[in-house]
Amino acid sequence: MIGYAFMGKAHSHAWRTVGAFFDVPAIEQRVLVGRHAGQAAAAAARYGWAEAATDWREVVARDDIDIVDICVPGWLHADIAVAALRAGKHVLVEKPLANTVEEAERMAAAAREARAQGVVSMVGFTYRRVPALAYAQRLIAEGRLGAVREVRASYLQDWLADAQTPMTWRLRKESAGSGALGDIASHAIDQVQFLTGDAVVEVSGRLHTFVERRPGPDGPEDVTVDDAAWATLSLGSGAIASVEVSRVATGRKNSLRIEAYGTGGALAFDLERPSELDFHDGSVPAEEAGFRRIVVTEPGHPYMDAWWPPGHVIGWEHAFTHEVRDFLAAIRDGGDPSPSFEEGLQVQRVLAAVEESAAARSAIVPL
Amino acid sequence: MIGYAFMGKAHSHAWRTVGAFFDVPAIEQRVLVGRHAGQAAAAAARYGWAEAATDWREVVARDDIDIVDICVPGWLHADIAVAALRAGKHVLVEKPLANTVEEAERMAAAAREARAQGVVSMVGFTYRRVPALAYAQRLIAEGRLGAVREVRASYLQDWLADAQTPMTWRLRKESAGSGALGDIASHAIDQVQFLTGDAVVEVSGRLHTFVERRPGPDGPEDVTVDDAAWATLSLGSGAIASVEVSRVATGRKNSLRIEAYGTGGALAFDLERPSELDFHDGSVPAEEAGFRRIVVTEPGHPYMDAWWPPGHVIGWEHAFTHEVRDFLAAIRDGGDPSPSFEEGLQVQRVLAAVEESAAARSAIVPL
Amino acid sequence: MIGYAFMGKAHSHAWRTVGAFFDVPAIEQRVLVGRHAGQAAAAAARYGWAEAATDWREVVARDDIDIVDICVPGWLHADIAVAALRAGKHVLVEKPLANTVEEAERMAAAAREARAQGVVSMVGFTYRRVPALAYAQRLIAEGRLGAVREVRASYLQDWLADAQTPMTWRLRKESAGSGALGDIASHAIDQVQFLTGDAVVEVSGRLHTFVERRPGPDGPEDVTVDDAAWATLSLGSGAIASVEVSRVATGRKNSLRIEAYGTGGALAFDLERPSELDFHDGSVPAEEAGFRRIVVTEPGHPYMDAWWPPGHVIGWEHAFTHEVRDFLAAIRDGGDPSPSFEEGLQVQRVLAAVEESAAARSAIVPL
Amino acid sequence: MIGYAFMGKAHSHAWRTVGAFFDVPAIEQRVLVGRHAGQAAAAAARYGWAEAATDWREVVARDDIDIVDICVPGWLHADIAVAALRAGKHVLVEKPLANTVEEAERMAAAAREARAQGVVSMVGFTYRRVPALAYAQRLIAEGRLGAVREVRASYLQDWLADAQTPMTWRLRKESAGSGALGDIASHAIDQVQFLTGDAVVEVSGRLHTFVERRPGPDGPEDVTVDDAAWATLSLGSGAIASVEVSRVATGRKNSLRIEAYGTGGALAFDLERPSELDFHDGSVPAEEAGFRRIVVTEPGHPYMDAWWPPGHVIGWEHAFTHEVRDFLAAIRDGGDPSPSFEEGLQVQRVLAAVEESAAARSAIVPL
Repeated sequence: MIGYAFMGKAHSHAWRTVGAFFDVPAIEQRVLVGRHAGQAAAAAARYGWAEAATDWREVVARDDIDIVDICVPGWLHADIAVAALRAGKHVLVEKPLANTVEEAERMAAAAREARAQGVVSMVGFTYRRVPALAYAQRLIAEGRLGAVREVRASYLQDWLADAQTPMTWRLRKESAGSGALGDIASHAIDQVQFLTGDAVVEVSGRLHTFVERRPGPDGPEDVTVDDAAWATLSLGSGAIASVEVSRVATGRKNSLRIEAYGTGGALAFDLERPSELDFHDGSVPAEEAGFRRIVVTEPGHPYMDAWWPPGHVIGWEHAFTHEVRDFLAAIRDGGDPSPSFEEGLQVQRVLAAVEESAAARSAIVPL
Repeated sequence: MIGYAFMGKAHSHAWRTVGAFFDVPAIEQRVLVGRHAGQAAAAAARYGWAEAATDWREVVARDDIDIVDICVPGWLHADIAVAALRAGKHVLVEKPLANTVEEAERMAAAAREARAQGVVSMVGFTYRRVPALAYAQRLIAEGRLGAVREVRASYLQDWLADAQTPMTWRLRKESAGSGALGDIASHAIDQVQFLTGDAVVEVSGRLHTFVERRPGPDGPEDVTVDDAAWATLSLGSGAIASVEVSRVATGRKNSLRIEAYGTGGALAFDLERPSELDFHDGSVPAEEAGFRRIVVTEPGHPYMDAWWPPGHVIGWEHAFTHEVRDFLAAIRDGGDPSPSFEEGLQVQRVLAAVEESAAARSAIVPL
Repeated sequence: MIGYAFMGKAHSHAWRTVGAFFDVPAIEQRVLVGRHAGQAAAAAARYGWAEAATDWREVVARDDIDIVDICVPGWLHADIAVAALRAGKHVLVEKPLANTVEEAERMAAAAREARAQGVVSMVGFTYRRVPALAYAQRLIAEGRLGAVREVRASYLQDWLADAQTPMTWRLRKESAGSGALGDIASHAIDQVQFLTGDAVVEVSGRLHTFVERRPGPDGPEDVTVDDAAWATLSLGSGAIASVEVSRVATGRKNSLRIEAYGTGGALAFDLERPSELDFHDGSVPAEEAGFRRIVVTEPGHPYMDAWWPPGHVIGWEHAFTHEVRDFLAAIRDGGDPSPSFEEGLQVQRVLAAVEESAAARSAIVPL
Repeated sequence: MIGYAFMGKAHSHAWRTVGAFFDVPAIEQRVLVGRHAGQAAAAAARYGWAEAATDWREVVARDDIDIVDICVPGWLHADIAVAALRAGKHVLVEKPLANTVEEAERMAAAAREARAQGVVSMVGFTYRRVPALAYAQRLIAEGRLGAVREVRASYLQDWLADAQTPMTWRLRKESAGSGALGDIASHAIDQVQFLTGDAVVEVSGRLHTFVERRPGPDGPEDVTVDDAAWATLSLGSGAIASVEVSRVATGRKNSLRIEAYGTGGALAFDLERPSELDFHDGSVPAEEAGFRRIVVTEPGHPYMDAWWPPGHVIGWEHAFTHEVRDFLAAIRDGGDPSPSFEEGLQVQRVLAAVEESAAARSAIVPL
């Protein structure tokens, strides 16, 4: 595993936990790679990795390494992933796939070549493995919503609401690629495509930076990415999705909300209540109909037979456990896990189209 | 109409409104009776009554009066109702029917005699006419919950939470009969019997006064009624209901909550959201099952075809409009509207049994 | 009053009710005007109007008429309103103000002239008088949200979700002007401007018709208005609002949802629970902070001192009672009630800009 | 660890996870003890225990064992715990402490003696370590509710709602002690005492078995424990708590709901949404007051600084991680962790009093 910050901590928990709940090949947590030797060693000890290292190139070349899990910032994804794939390692990479379409294309090409050699790759749009969203996808695929017409997706956070929150690499275009767009709209866009099983074909978008300068160590610095983004997305089927994301939405901590309206039913989800799915079944007589709050903890719900009895909810972190489970199962079974790098690239193209549209006064851009 | 305080205002609105929404015999708002001539005249003008009077005995004897609506405190109910019924007037009386079982028996006897003459009577347990509760009753009667096993009913308010809220007639046993018990547990108990179509057969109860003295005009006075009450009620069918009511439940304004659990389904309701009913249909497969939030505004819901398109909610006050509608329809059709004085007497007996049990260290008292 | 359909019924209830709850000049419900003499007479009798008539021109010229309340479809607004204002009548007109900007301009000009003569006019964006929204506006005006950055407004209904729902005048451009846009986005846009006290300065928009043909009496007919609309609105202050409206959102009956995020707090509202306002006060320490569910029934809340004790919720219909109250108060006091025809015209311009942008592939259009 | 069923799985996850998130002494998962050698070995492998064994007496005597974690049914608790404590092992035991008061007294005595030797013991009323409930306790202890007057606690499940669900040891008095009472009312009662910091002094109770016979392997068998229980509890301070628990409440999976009403505020919690706490702060002006939904994921909330950024909720299972954390910290620091066996014994006495009252027609029983 490369990286030991927020995502490294979350992934480590998943690797450590998966075998106790799911039937997957046994794994060993071999090496944790980080820039600072001391911190990497401390993190390795804490998170259960046998050793620590500082040079990812060396590690991805080692014979005793089968899997590389990339948890570093986006601008480093392409080089590491391509090198690892070429070295024949299975690769799991955090989302978004990359900072640019060009990088993402390079990665997708490398993944295609590697796949021919039986090497597996996957991008971590983890929310596909939240049981309620996996179940939502199943309901839609089974036709329980009829034809989906409209999707409303928003992802609202407030950790940048305070104009005094200081500058970070996440707020500079050169390191982060974009702001809320790449960070959280990527999740929303992936969900739109995942849930509907459809692809975005054209886009109108808008970006805005509410706080244009923030305190840096040597005085105010320019914020060069967006605080918030809006888009409407046309899907191949004719459905239309709206996306709104913000990191300055006071009072919302991690609220990815998704609603889907079809000819035969509707769904609503909020990540702040990740174990619930509201389902409106349009075939129920009007008098009795309503959004029913499904507590997604039944053994028949995706992934849930591995956990606790009904009503005992699991946390946000276990979407990673499920991700690792599916990744390991694909390695074992020779499968082709989703979301692939190709799918990650498609999200990247949508992000780029939103930027292009925003730069053209929101005029629609085809993909 | 006798009385022009809170209930008089609510009833007047209902009488004024009913004809515009429902097909009922035309009525005229003839006389408003109150103790103070000036105030009664002002209220009559405001609430649409043609004239005002101060002597209810005179008014209930008038030939041009067909209906008497009693909105005064409980200790006055029996005398007025019996006099009106004997004068051949149809009588609607606010809940609870009376302050004591003895008074309630007198009233029920008078109602029985009057009924033989085609005279109609009814007690105003208005919440039976909240569309969501009327619909809940219908679902249960249709067997959608299977056999009801448990009912949880609570009615929580907080207007007495502050120990400095001054003394009133409602806090003296001689005028009010009891406290939260008669005032709001009576609603909860009526709902338990209404929803299940069953009768309470034994009772364990408890009463408590948290604020024992309150400011009066001449210094502190003793509160001689309960602030809160608890009871478990056995129903004839073997179901068990719990009741908890309080007027000191900080933060709850008018929260009558009712949950019913049966062998085949469940229901939940909260009067602070009176247009919603949560229904769990046990015949739905476990994976898809959940409490569905029914917005009770469909034309097929009780009373709702008279109002607005779906999704446009009506207020608390229209339960009175529906009550008056059913009362007028019963007069027109020679019907026997529910809740009858007999049903009001049954509630009174349950209230008395709760008091008796509370006095006997909560030991079960049969009815 | 001209018109006796849905809006006529709602307005009649308001006129009949207002005097019993608010101190306003006494009014008489003089004439109900409708195209069909028989139906108008029946409606007049039911809704409390002294007489019925079929020719609005005659009625608006009568000396015994002081107020004209226009509840007919939009294409008739301009002629009636202008004639009534010129005849010196105070005019209340349903929303949206008109079907076109040109008509709206004519009406605004007539209102300006009439105002100089002490004649009052008002357009019925009724939701400004829902107590929770009036209270939301007050909180924002008092600075409790700090500077508003983002508003999310959606208005979702499903009465056209079924493709077999037949054709009506509301689905033809020549009679309705537009579809969901004029009908319900107008409400959302008015709320955005009302709540923020700000004006839209540029717009990107999109329209879509999901069901392009519907059954008519003589076979399928083309639907020539939108089923759904999306827009992002830039406000003068730099805030950005998103709007999404639909009449095919399965499972949503009348769900006008509004969220506002400011530098110092946030608000959320849903018209399916009209008596509640969720308020996040950003000055509360993070550990204790959260969206608090305010039950808007306290005497200090707008309009609520006239009604019932706390916790007793009022219905959708009383926003009209409050509208009529404010209109009558303005007549009495020589006031200038809001929303004025000028404000109605501004909404019309935003609607036109959305259409213009939609026709130009969503490119931003300035106002 | 003794036992590897539901609780064994949950505890194993906690032991495996605690060190990655909290600063606690390093532990090794040494031996898993179970009756069946093969199953124990498989569970040990899966859950991360170095070896398996079948004789707990042998294991608790081993020198390389410092801690014994007891996850077996209640009737085995006393013998194992007493033996382990006498052998100088720190003991964590699942709730309820025992099946009878007598057993619990024996255990509490052994714990007292062991404590004198620096040996630590604790009973697993895990829900004290759900961050929202730990935070609720802190708010009450800080006086934010003023004096608590009323607590409403219910714990509703439905896994026995179906009368065809077969007989198990949990439904026989000799093995389970009681039914819903010991299993889930014990949690509710512990919470009442934990949250208020107060002790139950008298009790009125009721028990009921709705399904009296269930299918066994050789035909129908008698159910000899309760399906549901009700109680009112008087606390030393004068507060009154109601408790209602059921395992036949159709539609409720694991719904432990707790509401507390004080002179200065109120709280509400539901275990089906374990990361949320609703708090009504009575010092807020009435107009702005309401139950605020606190998402208990801030670094200042109990235990939460160890986990993820705000808004990322953790699961039910991590209450065990927190329990283990506090237990290990107490061993390290020589502390005396709560709930002690003494506190477990007090809960046992309340349970016994409920049974005694139920047998005496609900008459109040003092403790």
